[in-house]
Amino acid sequence: MQVRGAPLIGVAGVYGVALAMRMDASNDLLDAACAALCETRPTAVNLRRRVDQVRDVLIDLKPEARAERALQLAHQIAEEEVGLSQRIAAHGLALFEKAWHRKGERGRLEVLTHCNAGWLATVDWGTALAPVYLAHQKGIPVHVWVDETRPRNQGYLTAWELRQEGVPHTLIVDNAGGHLMQKGEVDLCIVGTDRTTAFGDVCNKVGTYLKALAAHDNKVPFYVAAPSSSIDWKIRDGMTEIPIEEREATEVHELSTNDAQGRRSVRVTPEGVNAKNYAFDVTPARLVSALVTERGVCPATAEGLLSLFPEGHR
Amino acid sequence: MQVRGAPLIGVAGVYGVALAMRMDASNDLLDAACAALCETRPTAVNLRRRVDQVRDVLIDLKPEARAERALQLAHQIAEEEVGLSQRIAAHGLALFEKAWHRKGERGRLEVLTHCNAGWLATVDWGTALAPVYLAHQKGIPVHVWVDETRPRNQGYLTAWELRQEGVPHTLIVDNAGGHLMQKGEVDLCIVGTDRTTAFGDVCNKVGTYLKALAAHDNKVPFYVAAPSSSIDWKIRDGMTEIPIEEREATEVHELSTNDAQGRRSVRVTPEGVNAKNYAFDVTPARLVSALVTERGVCPATAEGLLSLFPEGHR
Repeated sequence: MQVRGAPLIGVAGVYGVALAMRMDASNDLLDAACAALCETRPTAVNLRRRVDQVRDVLIDLKPEARAERALQLAHQIAEEEVGLSQRIAAHGLALFEKAWHRKGERGRLEVLTHCNAGWLATVDWGTALAPVYLAHQKGIPVHVWVDETRPRNQGYLTAWELRQEGVPHTLIVDNAGGHLMQKGEVDLCIVGTDRTTAFGDVCNKVGTYLKALAAHDNKVPFYVAAPSSSIDWKIRDGMTEIPIEEREATEVHELSTNDAQGRRSVRVTPEGVNAKNYAFDVTPARLVSALVTERGVCPATAEGLLSLFPEGHR
Repeated sequence: MQVRGAPLIGVAGVYGVALAMRMDASNDLLDAACAALCETRPTAVNLRRRVDQVRDVLIDLKPEARAERALQLAHQIAEEEVGLSQRIAAHGLALFEKAWHRKGERGRLEVLTHCNAGWLATVDWGTALAPVYLAHQKGIPVHVWVDETRPRNQGYLTAWELRQEGVPHTLIVDNAGGHLMQKGEVDLCIVGTDRTTAFGDVCNKVGTYLKALAAHDNKVPFYVAAPSSSIDWKIRDGMTEIPIEEREATEVHELSTNDAQGRRSVRVTPEGVNAKNYAFDVTPARLVSALVTERGVCPATAEGLLSLFPEGHR
């Protein structure tokens, strides 16, 4: 958990392979490094996808050529992720413009997001936050409701990022989003994804499913910013086919604080109490209004995804 | 916020009237005290209900008789709330037994609750937790998933209470309940209510609505323990007719911890970030499987409530 955010995890994994190849560029270490890196985070597919992509190139090269090529590929993949984010920003902007127009261009465009899918989770720009930044730059008065996102409080990161970019925002606890949607205080939701199935199910930070249910119940569009690096074409059903990472209960028991006394953990549960910590949940495709990919916006269906990514058939 | 839990707030309010009458039993102070007490907490109806009940008796008495009568009434209402909890326990037990039977009496009966509606929120027993305690006493192997319930972390209280009673339980963040229901790890949900409308809408701690949506989506029964003291017969539509208390943003920014260094507040959000803190939300009757009252279990409808409380017509 030193690196977080599916796209950034993928890029970091590739740099990890490059580092391993500087130590020892044998087939054995190549395979061992790839396997070890992929095991660190079971849910996000970007990691496996990117590591496999690099391994497939390196395995056909002579060992002495691997270290340099691995580093080249890592730089190239990092640049590619920046490009994906920029194109997601552009395609997402069209959705934001439509929502703003539908609202009569009055007041603020109220956006709700969960977790952090901004530049702290990618190489630059972000996925879910990329269209937020672009809409803000284009003069749409965006305001973001930032879910706290227990237990790791990634809302802290999102609020911090938005502040750096000058985007108005308000932090709320994870329990509050449903009430806001009931009261008409949310015009659209947008979140990232750690893994998207070929049929449009979305696995993202735990709690995403609850917000998707509330959006559906209140007819609020629920968008998922899904770079193709997050799509796992091999699986259809997110509920049964995606392993959900279970993390240390410590994350529930302890919270980080950073004040005048410095950064430290404090206990927030009674001593002796058990806790469980499931890190992700699956939002079924039926609750997703649209996927925002680098090639455009599509319905969260197999047909929708294949219309933009015909190569997904392979 | 020295007193919490709708039933306990109601009882505390009545003792507040009794104290006021000891100071000055005039009509003026009686009205001023009742008004001031009711204004402290706008959402729960028990407070207004109980204070009005006592005021209606006292106003017809001579001032010199009021202080003693007020205290008698307070004791009587406290006892009455204990009786309500015990009868809710008995009627709720039938639902727990049915769920346990439906499960083939194997494993554990998995119950999810939000906030704290146990004896810390009432005079004794509790509302939502009353059937849990009784089922546990009757030998049903109940296990409770305890929602953390940000921002005030009332899950701390629930976990602590359950531990005192020896009921197995696991604390989870508010984001996790949907995932558990998707995975079949919850057999039933039960929560309390701060105000129930004549048509069965339920206003309870913020986030309750999200769990009700997840229960509905996964066909998990969602029960609300609703003593008649929580029913507001004058209103129908919870969404438009119940004022939602907005509390200090400090509750979102700061968290209480209680460890070796003692009880203190720590900051958990970045400096300079805005936060909003809505304390309750409304769960529409359509998402409530049944209401558990002191007179029995009924559908969350006007007809259901009137079948048990025909006097609600008045």
